[in-house]
Amino acid sequence: MFNFDFYNPTQILFGQGQIAAIAGLIPPQARVLMTYGGGSIKQNGVYDEVKAALAGHTVLEFAGIEPNPSYETLMQAVAVVKSERIDFLLAVGGGSVVDGTKFIAAATLHEGEAWDILAKGGKIVEAALPFGTVLTLPATGSEMNGSAVITRKATQEKRSFMSRKVYPKFSVLDPSKTFTLPLRQVGNGVVDAFAHVMEQYLTYPVNASVQDRFAEGILLTLIEEGPKALSHPDDYDVRANVMWSATLALNGLIGVGVPQDWSTHAIGHELTALYELDHAQTLAIILPSMLRVRKQAKRAKLLQYAARVWGLDGGDEEGRIEAAIARTEFFFRHMGVKTRLADYGLNHASVDAVVSALEAHGMTALGEQREVTPAVSRKVLELSL
Amino acid sequence: MFNFDFYNPTQILFGQGQIAAIAGLIPPQARVLMTYGGGSIKQNGVYDEVKAALAGHTVLEFAGIEPNPSYETLMQAVAVVKSERIDFLLAVGGGSVVDGTKFIAAATLHEGEAWDILAKGGKIVEAALPFGTVLTLPATGSEMNGSAVITRKATQEKRSFMSRKVYPKFSVLDPSKTFTLPLRQVGNGVVDAFAHVMEQYLTYPVNASVQDRFAEGILLTLIEEGPKALSHPDDYDVRANVMWSATLALNGLIGVGVPQDWSTHAIGHELTALYELDHAQTLAIILPSMLRVRKQAKRAKLLQYAARVWGLDGGDEEGRIEAAIARTEFFFRHMGVKTRLADYGLNHASVDAVVSALEAHGMTALGEQREVTPAVSRKVLELSL
Repeated sequence: MFNFDFYNPTQILFGQGQIAAIAGLIPPQARVLMTYGGGSIKQNGVYDEVKAALAGHTVLEFAGIEPNPSYETLMQAVAVVKSERIDFLLAVGGGSVVDGTKFIAAATLHEGEAWDILAKGGKIVEAALPFGTVLTLPATGSEMNGSAVITRKATQEKRSFMSRKVYPKFSVLDPSKTFTLPLRQVGNGVVDAFAHVMEQYLTYPVNASVQDRFAEGILLTLIEEGPKALSHPDDYDVRANVMWSATLALNGLIGVGVPQDWSTHAIGHELTALYELDHAQTLAIILPSMLRVRKQAKRAKLLQYAARVWGLDGGDEEGRIEAAIARTEFFFRHMGVKTRLADYGLNHASVDAVVSALEAHGMTALGEQREVTPAVSRKVLELSL
Repeated sequence: MFNFDFYNPTQILFGQGQIAAIAGLIPPQARVLMTYGGGSIKQNGVYDEVKAALAGHTVLEFAGIEPNPSYETLMQAVAVVKSERIDFLLAVGGGSVVDGTKFIAAATLHEGEAWDILAKGGKIVEAALPFGTVLTLPATGSEMNGSAVITRKATQEKRSFMSRKVYPKFSVLDPSKTFTLPLRQVGNGVVDAFAHVMEQYLTYPVNASVQDRFAEGILLTLIEEGPKALSHPDDYDVRANVMWSATLALNGLIGVGVPQDWSTHAIGHELTALYELDHAQTLAIILPSMLRVRKQAKRAKLLQYAARVWGLDGGDEEGRIEAAIARTEFFFRHMGVKTRLADYGLNHASVDAVVSALEAHGMTALGEQREVTPAVSRKVLELSL
């Protein structure tokens, strides 16, 4: 096991009716800016519940944070925060709203060019406004970590940043608020969480037994519960298991003391920036091919994954590995997320474009061994056609 | 799944050499009181490393916190903290030193009778001195939670308290510092962590899939790694897995949203208070009998435990359940912890004494269903003779 430094101070209020508790978690005198997206929270009742909970507070609103939240939109929010002397942010929505709100929180208190926060991956963040979240879409895990991904529309760049200053103070997770999600978002969320686990688990063994068991536990839960979330949309326990799994997939815990990959995400981000594919769609396309191309480097963990997650422990090793990857692919499609570039109308030309973008952004030595060069990325993309 | 509120802000610095990092985590102007036990930290090098790391700080010392830390000793420490105007505590040792330090931290700032903190289970704790820990013995999980157990020698009472004010600011876990632990403490630690998981896992199902998988993951790790810690004392990864498992067994995570038992601990505490058995010894005695006596109430989870933890999924259900309990018992003995009251020289008279003590302390409706009455406790104890 590698040395590690784990810290995660986000308070999680989980369950039906928990939105009412937020009033006690935001200072009574705070000027609150509620940030949200396209308005689905007005249809599912979350908007009204939040407003009711904050009846005693001063609450302003900033709507319109888009999927793959844009730097351009967020800088408008920063201007509102400054002019309205906001001192607490409340993100209400999915991962994009939470990610965007983290950037607003950091950019507001950053002196100098706000883009530098993203250009330098968050290292220069010295302070951030406090904020909480009310999560409506289980997927990214952003509700319990210090990371965010932001897109600059002008240049088609998708960049992430990470800082201990942008952990949410609290996050409210009410599974019943996810009953009415569109199936596409449910499927995307499960695939996203699954891929998050795989980036931290499917590398090479370092004798980190508990981390492996926890990772496998989340994967098994997503495999068992994900399809039920599609077929029984208002089963509370199913939604609760999916929601908590997605949070635990990326709250730092399963990634401590182990090597991490993240090359699938890096390639996927370019696909989203260039072609506006959903984040989860890019992961469903890239991950299976990445596992096939890097089969030798990931061999020991692929066999462990085959045995413990898919129950494949007989027969020859090559066959087990291929079967485990094929089941992964099938699971993604079963969740309604297609796994080939061609499924999204993309062809060879996109391979060149994505490889060029990776090179332009310095993404030339990805993965747990830094061996995913542009040539390897090309191979992965070609296998995904 | 039940609703829950999870919060755990303790920073964990894990791995070889991490003691050096504590200087950066304690305010430079702080007057630090280093608390420890009987001096084993002077033999294993931890004392010297801590002193070296804090060379630039003002550090006073309070030694002599005993196993099952006593109210009487800790109140002496509180007097030192007050007279020396201490503003940061550093617990260096095992769970007893950490528990004791939590009480010192809370009692120092408590106005009124300090015993009330324990009498009221921590509810009245409004503030506590900040403190960190350097853990030398993986077992109790106290390094990453807000709980402590304290014994009042004068009255033979063992009481616990819990408060969000007494989470350690940080805990340093260096597995290499556990190489030289006496085997008895290694075995005790593994049994203690195992029992912590069982109290949160082996109840009745509430469809909390991830919590179950995580609990099973810790149990499997302890079963695989625990015996290796005895046979290969200086295998770093084995020690790391045991240490991290013990922390995760009681940092709150596996217990969120699920029913919890803790009746084994309640009975065990009386055994320790009356006969000075090691905490883990009492758990090894009580837990198997508790599972047998409450077999019907715990039936579904016992079958799940048998299948997922011990691989027992064939044959009749009664047989599987008994086999799983027998293996649990064997595992405790394999870790060097005996599982019968008679092994410790106790007989029928102790049954009466423990039941009377439970009644005197109001422990008359224990367990996840509150159905462990004194009569049930008696049955459990008799089965443990």
